[in-house]
Amino acid sequence: MRAVDIIMRKRDGKELSREELRFLISGYVAGEIPDYQISAWAMAVFFQGMSAAETASLTEVMLHSGAVMDLSGVTGPLVDKHSTGGVGDKTSLILAPIAASLGIKDPMMSGRALGHTGGTLDKLDSIPGYRTSLSAAEFKHILITDGFAMTGQTADIVPADRLLYALRDVSGTVESIPLITASILSKKAAEGAQALVLDVKYGSGAFMKNPADAEKLARSLVDTWRAMGKPIAALLTDMDEPLGKMTGNFLEVEECYDCLAPEAATSHASLSADLMEVTLELAARMAVLGGKAANAAEGRALCEQALASGKPRELFMTNIASQGGDVEQFLSMRGNYRSPHRAEIAAAADGYIARIDAWKTGHAGVVLGVGRNRTEDPVSPTAGIEFHRKRGAAVKKGDPIMTVWGKDQASLEAALPRLAEAVEYSPAAPAERKLILKEIG
Amino acid sequence: MRAVDIIMRKRDGKELSREELRFLISGYVAGEIPDYQISAWAMAVFFQGMSAAETASLTEVMLHSGAVMDLSGVTGPLVDKHSTGGVGDKTSLILAPIAASLGIKDPMMSGRALGHTGGTLDKLDSIPGYRTSLSAAEFKHILITDGFAMTGQTADIVPADRLLYALRDVSGTVESIPLITASILSKKAAEGAQALVLDVKYGSGAFMKNPADAEKLARSLVDTWRAMGKPIAALLTDMDEPLGKMTGNFLEVEECYDCLAPEAATSHASLSADLMEVTLELAARMAVLGGKAANAAEGRALCEQALASGKPRELFMTNIASQGGDVEQFLSMRGNYRSPHRAEIAAAADGYIARIDAWKTGHAGVVLGVGRNRTEDPVSPTAGIEFHRKRGAAVKKGDPIMTVWGKDQASLEAALPRLAEAVEYSPAAPAERKLILKEIG
Repeated sequence: MRAVDIIMRKRDGKELSREELRFLISGYVAGEIPDYQISAWAMAVFFQGMSAAETASLTEVMLHSGAVMDLSGVTGPLVDKHSTGGVGDKTSLILAPIAASLGIKDPMMSGRALGHTGGTLDKLDSIPGYRTSLSAAEFKHILITDGFAMTGQTADIVPADRLLYALRDVSGTVESIPLITASILSKKAAEGAQALVLDVKYGSGAFMKNPADAEKLARSLVDTWRAMGKPIAALLTDMDEPLGKMTGNFLEVEECYDCLAPEAATSHASLSADLMEVTLELAARMAVLGGKAANAAEGRALCEQALASGKPRELFMTNIASQGGDVEQFLSMRGNYRSPHRAEIAAAADGYIARIDAWKTGHAGVVLGVGRNRTEDPVSPTAGIEFHRKRGAAVKKGDPIMTVWGKDQASLEAALPRLAEAVEYSPAAPAERKLILKEIG
Repeated sequence: MRAVDIIMRKRDGKELSREELRFLISGYVAGEIPDYQISAWAMAVFFQGMSAAETASLTEVMLHSGAVMDLSGVTGPLVDKHSTGGVGDKTSLILAPIAASLGIKDPMMSGRALGHTGGTLDKLDSIPGYRTSLSAAEFKHILITDGFAMTGQTADIVPADRLLYALRDVSGTVESIPLITASILSKKAAEGAQALVLDVKYGSGAFMKNPADAEKLARSLVDTWRAMGKPIAALLTDMDEPLGKMTGNFLEVEECYDCLAPEAATSHASLSADLMEVTLELAARMAVLGGKAANAAEGRALCEQALASGKPRELFMTNIASQGGDVEQFLSMRGNYRSPHRAEIAAAADGYIARIDAWKTGHAGVVLGVGRNRTEDPVSPTAGIEFHRKRGAAVKKGDPIMTVWGKDQASLEAALPRLAEAVEYSPAAPAERKLILKEIG
């Protein structure tokens, strides 16, 4: 077998066999197949695509390039959720305890903020003492006791993905649906996920800018996971505006705590209503895949009942303690753990807020210190934005729209004009925008 | 400027600017842009193609990656010929002295045999004493005195092409028409060619297997050279059967000497008739581009007159002496400089020869020692094939078809079954096959 022949077969539109993909990927990880052949192959994949069977083969070959989490002995259905990333996207911290309260086990391995999108690990790190680097034994133990555990990926999980992603990033081959699919699913499978609920986002703050592209990605993820013999559900959700009323690290943890209040499931008037709607619809699918409900409507009702019972918030607090967090200190920080560098954004015109652009808000967040442009940069726990009004609100010039905290004064001042520009006004109320476009079956 | 952005622009079907191509290619030659970005770019070019202006920019950027032959002071029109390669393709050695006899200067930089195709330098090396590595000063001097000079490419000519070709070879990006175009034309331009006549071959022994692909390549070569402001003519010629009556190194030089006999222009019944037809049609275009004839028919007549005068054969012998060859010895070797390992291929059936497959014959030639599979392998001067009958001949079982010489007995025996298999028979005479399909204007 020669790498160049495999590249040419893909270039000419052929379906590669599992043996060919294993030869390429294991040879690449072993340093026997050079970067320049893999980047040419990745570009050929960009143009020719891959069948679901082929993408499943690539996913499994990548999955077995490193360690695989052993979750044997964990009783109860293992159901995880994956989001393609967004701004203010904090559903994981709410749905994991809801699902756990239903008896579902959620093994969450999360990532860090990069570019305009936030990262669950950075949010959790803002809780004093909370540890996001658990050993495999700790992770499994907490998963069993709390019903969910949250950790970062260890270096030995899917090394092929780290190598391949770094190469795709510099060779113009990031935007390939089968390669994105294999990257996401190989990590999810290596982390021990069995059933999977996907939140595939579209809009300015999402990786996919329009619903059609998001649907293609969702279709590929669903077909590939099923080709691997595992159950999956996927929702296409809107990420044109930041989700919920906060973006930031501690700010978002605080919003999640508030959303886990027993009354939150029904308080749809709040600025967290969009967040709760997406979270409950995702959690409803977790309930179905976990065998707790016959359909999404039944799952949704179960999740709302669970939330009203107060059990998910208890599990949230239990998990903070299990992972080393200081529960008392956390509670005392609510409402006041904010950077001293603070400013307000007020409405620039009378009328309606037509849109708050998620992409611009996310990039302003990087400037504030919420996120980062390079993986090695630090983030600030106390920087962020609180929204007072969002899309559709009627405003008079001068009405407060956001409170903004920057990691320092210079960052704050650099971010303010970008945030002001992220808000678009219209004389009439903007058309309704569907928050959940459809389910990919 | 970042390489990844340029790759993505090409991937997305944009036309790259000369500055972008210069950034890529000069950065690659300087070792600043890595192989893995260039191979990804080459694969994007494979899929998206390039406009004629873009291909011309790439050609010029590659051309200026190294030394450019200075032919200033050479009087007379500079007209070169390039063939895309074939089996028994020896037109250069016949048309260069014909063109020179008309006052055209032909600066020929040639290559070596590789795979099933022969190489002019290997053929010339079979002449005792003949030197194919001339200094720039020698090359220019001989070009002025003899009207043509024949040498190999020096290492400082188009280093970008050597790097790029080696990378394309292992990354599945050889078969890209704009990349092939830039590779051919950058070298031709660096060698000092002004006007260019192209012999673009199709058929089993050619790089392009069918006329449609050959026409696409010819179109790209013609449009690109013109976009560089230089005159060009191209013929599409058949390479399904070996050209002429000999394949080999000394054997082909000998056939050229014979074809330069004053009577050769009109002796169309010989087994060299196909070779002479292609040679004279190419030489006719050289006469037109060199300003010696108003059209191809006039050019052809001029070339036939020149051949009948005996002048081209004199120039051929003058050049052998100029480049260090032993003329007396050369003449004494004719008809007997053959390997002692000899065999005959006889007709396997009664009927007609439907076809002698050029690709199979060329690969058998590699086994015999005529060519090579790896650039570092030696070739034999005395191995080769003489054809006694070709396509269309009526045969009885046992009639001689080829005499075959191998570099040693084992090679000879390994090649014989392949050669027997290269001959196809039919009960009726095969349909006419056009030798020169068309001219690309």
